[in-house]
Parts: sequence; C-alpha cells; structure tokens
Amino acid sequence: MSIKTPYLLFLGNAADPLAAKVAQGIRDWRPENCVGQLRLEGCNADLGLTDMTPNEAAAQGAKSLVVGVANRGGVIDSSWVEALIEAMESGLDLAAGLHNKLADIPELAEAAKRLGRQIHDVRHPTRSYPVASGTARCGKRLLAVGTDCSCGKMYTTLAIEKELRQRGVNADFRATGQTGILITGDGVSIDAVAADFISGSVEFHAPENTEDHWDIIEGQGSLYHASFAGVSLGLLHGSQADALVLCHEPTRTHMRGLPDFPLPSIKECMEANLRAASLTNKDARFVGIAINTSNLSDDEAMAYLSKIEQEFDLPTVDPVRTGVARIVDNLL
Amino acid sequence: MSIKTPYLLFLGNAADPLAAKVAQGIRDWRPENCVGQLRLEGCNADLGLTDMTPNEAAAQGAKSLVVGVANRGGVIDSSWVEALIEAMESGLDLAAGLHNKLADIPELAEAAKRLGRQIHDVRHPTRSYPVASGTARCGKRLLAVGTDCSCGKMYTTLAIEKELRQRGVNADFRATGQTGILITGDGVSIDAVAADFISGSVEFHAPENTEDHWDIIEGQGSLYHASFAGVSLGLLHGSQADALVLCHEPTRTHMRGLPDFPLPSIKECMEANLRAASLTNKDARFVGIAINTSNLSDDEAMAYLSKIEQEFDLPTVDPVRTGVARIVDNLL
Repeated sequence: MSIKTPYLLFLGNAADPLAAKVAQGIRDWRPENCVGQLRLEGCNADLGLTDMTPNEAAAQGAKSLVVGVANRGGVIDSSWVEALIEAMESGLDLAAGLHNKLADIPELAEAAKRLGRQIHDVRHPTRSYPVASGTARCGKRLLAVGTDCSCGKMYTTLAIEKELRQRGVNADFRATGQTGILITGDGVSIDAVAADFISGSVEFHAPENTEDHWDIIEGQGSLYHASFAGVSLGLLHGSQADALVLCHEPTRTHMRGLPDFPLPSIKECMEANLRAASLTNKDARFVGIAINTSNLSDDEAMAYLSKIEQEFDLPTVDPVRTGVARIVDNLL
Repeated sequence: MSIKTPYLLFLGNAADPLAAKVAQGIRDWRPENCVGQLRLEGCNADLGLTDMTPNEAAAQGAKSLVVGVANRGGVIDSSWVEALIEAMESGLDLAAGLHNKLADIPELAEAAKRLGRQIHDVRHPTRSYPVASGTARCGKRLLAVGTDCSCGKMYTTLAIEKELRQRGVNADFRATGQTGILITGDGVSIDAVAADFISGSVEFHAPENTEDHWDIIEGQGSLYHASFAGVSLGLLHGSQADALVLCHEPTRTHMRGLPDFPLPSIKECMEANLRAASLTNKDARFVGIAINTSNLSDDEAMAYLSKIEQEFDLPTVDPVRTGVARIVDNLL
C-alpha cells in the first residue's frame, strides 16, 4: 500500500473548504510531503500551497497525485479524469480514499497500464494478511479507543505522534483508515479487511520494534457501536496496546448513525476496553482522555475537561484547544 | 449464495472417512437433500448413499454437485476437474467450501460459462451486505457462543434446530461457516466478510420473522480468541440473540492455534458474552451449556456434565451423547 511521497494534492472542483478536508489533513500533519496543489475550475478550497500543473509538480519532485477532495457520496467526478490522466503522463502515481475505485474507471486503468503507474485505492486492501498470532512483540504501542465513531481518534493520535517526535521519542502513527493512510502513505483500511484478519492486519502494520519505539495506532469505531464493534475489538487485540487513550464527544445524543442507541458512559467504555485489551496485554492502561469540545464554548469546554479529569484522575485534554502534551507527559 | 438442492455429494479420492466429513455432515443433517454420492478411484470414504454418475444423479433430480471432501490444505485436486466438468455437462451447478476457488480453475470457469452453470465457492462472499442497523427485529434468535473455536457450535445449533422442528416449532438453522452453508444451501461465511459488515451480514441472513419463529444461528470463534474475537463480537451484535448456548471442550489445554493462550473459564466467558449481547438485546440470557465430551470416557463425561449443571443451574448436555432436548425444554 506504500504511496510514494511527496505529493501533489488534488482539490478538484471542491464545493467548499470542508470538501477538501483530506487534503487539509495531509497538509496539516505532513507538510513536508506536499509539493503543491492542483485546483480545477470552480474550486472553492485553497490550502495556501502553490498551484501547479502535474508537470510542474513532477519537476519539483512530486511522486504521487493524491485526491484530497470528496464529492457527495464519495464518487469520482467525471471532470477529474482528464487531470488524473495528465498527472500519470507527467510521471505521477495516483492515490485516493474514495468509495469507488479510481482503478475501476477504464480510462484511468488503461493509462496506468500504458504508462506503468500505480493507482492506490486505499479504502480497498489489495494485500492479504496473516491470521493474528497474539504473540507478545517488542516495542510499545498506544491505541485510541472511543465511546463512538468519528469523535477524534485520528486527530488525537496524530497529535500524540507529533508531540512525541518533538520530544525526540521514536514514534510512528499507524493509520487504520483511508485519511490516515493518505496522510502517511501507508497503513490499512481496517474496516475493509476480511473479518478473520482484523487483528492480523494490525500485527502486520504495527510490527515488532525496538524497545524504546512507540507505535501510535489510529483507533476505529467503538466497542459500543452496534454496527462496527467487531472492528474495534479486533483492532484492540491486534494492537496489544500498552497505553490507551479514550476519545469522546460530549454533546452527541446517540451513537453515530444509530438513533436508538445512547452513548455509553466514559467509565463503562473504559472498563470494557481494559477488559478486552487485557486478553493480549495484561498491562494495558489508560494514559489520558481526549475530548472533542468543538461544540462547546470556551468556558463550557474547560469546565468539562476539569470535571472529567477529576472524575478519572487522568490527564484530560482537547487535542485542538489544549494540545496533548499532558497525555504525553503521563505516557513517558 | 443459495445453492440449488438436492445434491450429488462428491467424495473424490478421499484419503479416509474424515476427509469427507463435510459430505457426512450434509447427509446427517439434510438427508432429504442427498440424491447420491460420486466417488473416484482410491476413495476411502463411503456415506452409504447410492453411487452414481452425474448423469444418473441429474436424472434423479439432483441440481448441484457439492464437493464434500477436503484435501490437505483445502486445495482442489487436479484429478477432480474432469468429474466436475462432467457434472456441469450433466446440468449440475457446483458448490464447494475450499480455500481455493473452483471458479479460479480456468477449465471449470470456462465450462461453467459455456454451459450456463453456477459455481458457488461458499467461503468467498460474492454479495455485498448493508451496515448493521441494530434495530430490534421481530422473531426470536438463538446463538451458540464458545470458550474457543471448533468446540461444537455447528453441531449444537443443527441439533437444536432438529429438536425444535420435531416438536413442531418453526425454526431455521442459519449458517455462518462454509460447512453449514453447504448443509443448508444458504448462509454467510462470516469470517470472509469485510470487517465493517460482520453484524450487517447476520442481520441479512437472520432477518425479521414471525413472532413464533426461531432462527438458530451457528456461532463462530470466541470472544476470547486473540485472532478472531472481532468476528464473534460482530456476530453476537448482529444476532440480537434472545437465547445463548455456551459451547465448551473441557480437555483443551490452550486456545486453538494459540499455544500461549489459556481457555477462559465458562463463567467469565458467559459473563463477557452476556455483557456484549446486551448492547443489541437487553433480554439476552443463557438457556443451556453444550459440552463436547468426545475426549472423555462415559463416566468422566456424565460426571463433568453434572458438575457444570450444578455450578450454573442450566441444562448441560453433550449434543452427541445426550442430545439437546433439555436445552430446548428450557428454551420453550
């Protein structure tokens, strides 16, 4: 799955900045991987990078064009095809995390074959994985778990990786979803792996390492999500996590996509994750709580963080408002 | 995935009776689906069915040839190809649950296309499934769960279905593994479904039903198996089980395939399953315990069953030695 870096970020005809949030994530977390941006007519997003053609990007050293824009439904806009072929003609590979595959578009598949380019549709694992062995492995691992889906696990783990690296700690973010894969150029879209290999794919992508090395593993879903809990459990077991961070969005009224399902309490969610984690790592412990307070005012946010911190006696942060330094202090 | 019945059972060149255990399972549980058997030279298995050619089987009404034999490694023996093509020429579809696909053998794929026959490789789901909704659905469901893999879940659930039907209860076994699918002609090989759709595939194959109907769902794996627990959890959530049966093999010294992992106690395994089941069905309860005592003497077996029954105050049976009638008594 390794995508060659650096990238030309393709913003296409993004309807608004939010439509280009994948590209935004890449620019925020891996600026060194971004050579420039390519925008089509009608594009309403701008990452502040130099606008360039594929040829110009290739001349600057770009190796891949990454589709950093999403349309409604995650489909591929027909207006993109010409630009993507031009990129391959300029020597760039393609990468995207859309629902539909770039490789399923005949013109793109034909051009890739003709030009000898790779097309990475990162939502769709192409390699096969071993069944998890469960065998203890060297190196240390942190995993983000959540009360629900989409409550900040990727952001939290990327922030922890950045903080660790700034402190000189040997650390790698391990992506388990398509945006994370595009940001780092590697990882597994774990929700698309065959069910038998969920844990095995994590053992593969967060392998044995030196004793002082931290893998910071992006979490997915929640043990309390009735649609996806199996993914979360397999991820927990495969991670053999030494350290867990609980992610939570306090204003959500029900589990994402499931109007009849209330959120678990932070306490029961932490207990369930610790019980399950202990199967493959008896020493697993929580090192912090990351709250997504984006729907709260400053005052509400700080009061909520303080309340949760008191209740659980763990560093409680909002990675965006306060940073994750206090979690990293506790980790090290 | 629906396989047309009845079947001609293909035993090939089975090295011994055990190699034909899939065919044996079909004959034991769905004798009405078995028209005859087809054996090649050197076959050391015999189901006691009439030996017949594909042409003879088709004349007797057979609609599919089912590969009921496994070679070492689950591969397809080259000596089978001629017989399988002959079957398709006689009008039969093919079905198999092997690791390698029949459809990947060019001669078979070509013949199927030429003759308009279906090839069902039941280990490899071909349909797509919805994400689980978690919405409560009408009808009742029983699920077998286990302390480990391969401890009797399929046998137990098939026996419960049979007992229920004999008592006039509207009940259907729902297969979640390849042997179960070949036995009943339908179901999902749940360990091969994309991780996001584990629970959704169960909701699909054990759908809403009349209030007096029981789906008897074949379990897979164990919440305590470090390689496969995600499958078991998704299956538990998708089942929305009203009734659970715990399956256990008392002489096993470690989790199957994982020498470093001891088995959980029956008690902790039941508690973990009840906790997880309650997410999608608050009324889930255990209705019995099924022990695979095949490695114990008669005396040891009866003593063990009695001990467990006293400890948990639940009907405790060996489906082979004692039948499952007492579990069904408790269920109804």
